[in-house]
Amino acid sequence: MKNRYEKNRTENLIYGRNVILELLELDKCIIEEIYVHSGIEKSFFKELMLNSKSIKIIELDKQKFETMSDGQKTQGVIAKITPYKYSSLDEILNYAKNKEEDPFLLVLDEIEDPNNLGAIIRSAEVFGVHGVILPKRRSSHISASVFKASAGAVSHIKICIVNNLNSTIDDLKKEGFWIYGSDINASEFSYKVDYKRSIALVVGNEGKGISRLTKEKCDILVKIPMYGKIKCLNASVAAGILMYDINRIRNT
Amino acid sequence: MKNRYEKNRTENLIYGRNVILELLELDKCIIEEIYVHSGIEKSFFKELMLNSKSIKIIELDKQKFETMSDGQKTQGVIAKITPYKYSSLDEILNYAKNKEEDPFLLVLDEIEDPNNLGAIIRSAEVFGVHGVILPKRRSSHISASVFKASAGAVSHIKICIVNNLNSTIDDLKKEGFWIYGSDINASEFSYKVDYKRSIALVVGNEGKGISRLTKEKCDILVKIPMYGKIKCLNASVAAGILMYDINRIRNT
Repeated sequence: MKNRYEKNRTENLIYGRNVILELLELDKCIIEEIYVHSGIEKSFFKELMLNSKSIKIIELDKQKFETMSDGQKTQGVIAKITPYKYSSLDEILNYAKNKEEDPFLLVLDEIEDPNNLGAIIRSAEVFGVHGVILPKRRSSHISASVFKASAGAVSHIKICIVNNLNSTIDDLKKEGFWIYGSDINASEFSYKVDYKRSIALVVGNEGKGISRLTKEKCDILVKIPMYGKIKCLNASVAAGILMYDINRIRNT
Repeated sequence: MKNRYEKNRTENLIYGRNVILELLELDKCIIEEIYVHSGIEKSFFKELMLNSKSIKIIELDKQKFETMSDGQKTQGVIAKITPYKYSSLDEILNYAKNKEEDPFLLVLDEIEDPNNLGAIIRSAEVFGVHGVILPKRRSSHISASVFKASAGAVSHIKICIVNNLNSTIDDLKKEGFWIYGSDINASEFSYKVDYKRSIALVVGNEGKGISRLTKEKCDILVKIPMYGKIKCLNASVAAGILMYDINRIRNT
């Protein structure tokens, strides 16, 4: 499957000092080359040099730099990043089945905010999820922002994009998966549920939750007990709590 | 205690279309007045009118608007917000003690990112925390960004700022509180710990965790079991999981 970054060369480029310095700090670096404006201040150039590990820094004259920046705000620095390589659903299923533990997949139904997507993928990696499934439309996909928000976790977990989430859920059911959905109106509390089987946990959009058709496909809807006036948690916090519970219940 | 927003009038102002529209969407609105540039497009003015509830919209000519915007990027719109009213530590302690449940406080040791602070306060409100304690220095405080990230939860929970976190912890101990600290190197797993007493949960900075002196003051350090290559969770996810656990263990 072609990912978004293969479509357009400029989508492999990220712009701006902070994001580039932060990406350089991560253990696994996705930056391939750095381009700086020839007029950049020496102090920043020095900072970049000190943090760039062995990544090539290329100085460009004003005209070339502006062509490359294509109207974006760059603060005088652009980085070319390695395009993210998505897995196929089959690769994820094979990987999950070959582990000596109950398969555990995460299905994200239209998570829009890159910071939420990154934080959720970070939690998924921490809690041993075998693969993450994203829909093609109306969802944030893997970008430099997601990579950064995931603290680099996207490099350690299989992620696939599917055309139709509902038919993918049908396929998962045929493979023996139980589909768990996160829903604030569910009747079951997450901490009382049996997770010792092949499961796919569906987490919905930040505002709307899981879409109606997808919710109907879930075998079990689960909720987190809440006591306040605010009626729901941040999407990445809710997803983190459910993944934590699944592991806790499986391992105790 | 004077809060930051009482010091400087311009700190009561927020700038930009999206953040103002998002604040208008929340149930509890902290916007008091909206100022628009006289040259603003009719389409946006209409959208603002439709969403402004009964909040006064004041049109300013170019010169007055620019004086008010004070060099900030405004996209032609500025809003004046109600300054956040912090509680005192005594108010929080009295409130916690008068509830018919074990007191539960949250101590945030240098959370820097307003989005994390907002998400943590949102979870705290959802999980029935009686009060949140922030240090005066090196911490994000309550701003429009925090309010928004908390989904308005800051209006439903008591928050205080203290000069010295460590002496506040000493005071809490004298009041009979047990101090629990979140630490990735803790020996105790959070889900095995007794939380049925007066507790204050300390959560540390996004990068550094709890500072050394504060950690030494904790009675019990707890951790979340993790299985991946990434060694820690997002700060707001970790805090959310611990607050969830405290409630779950208290109520089951």
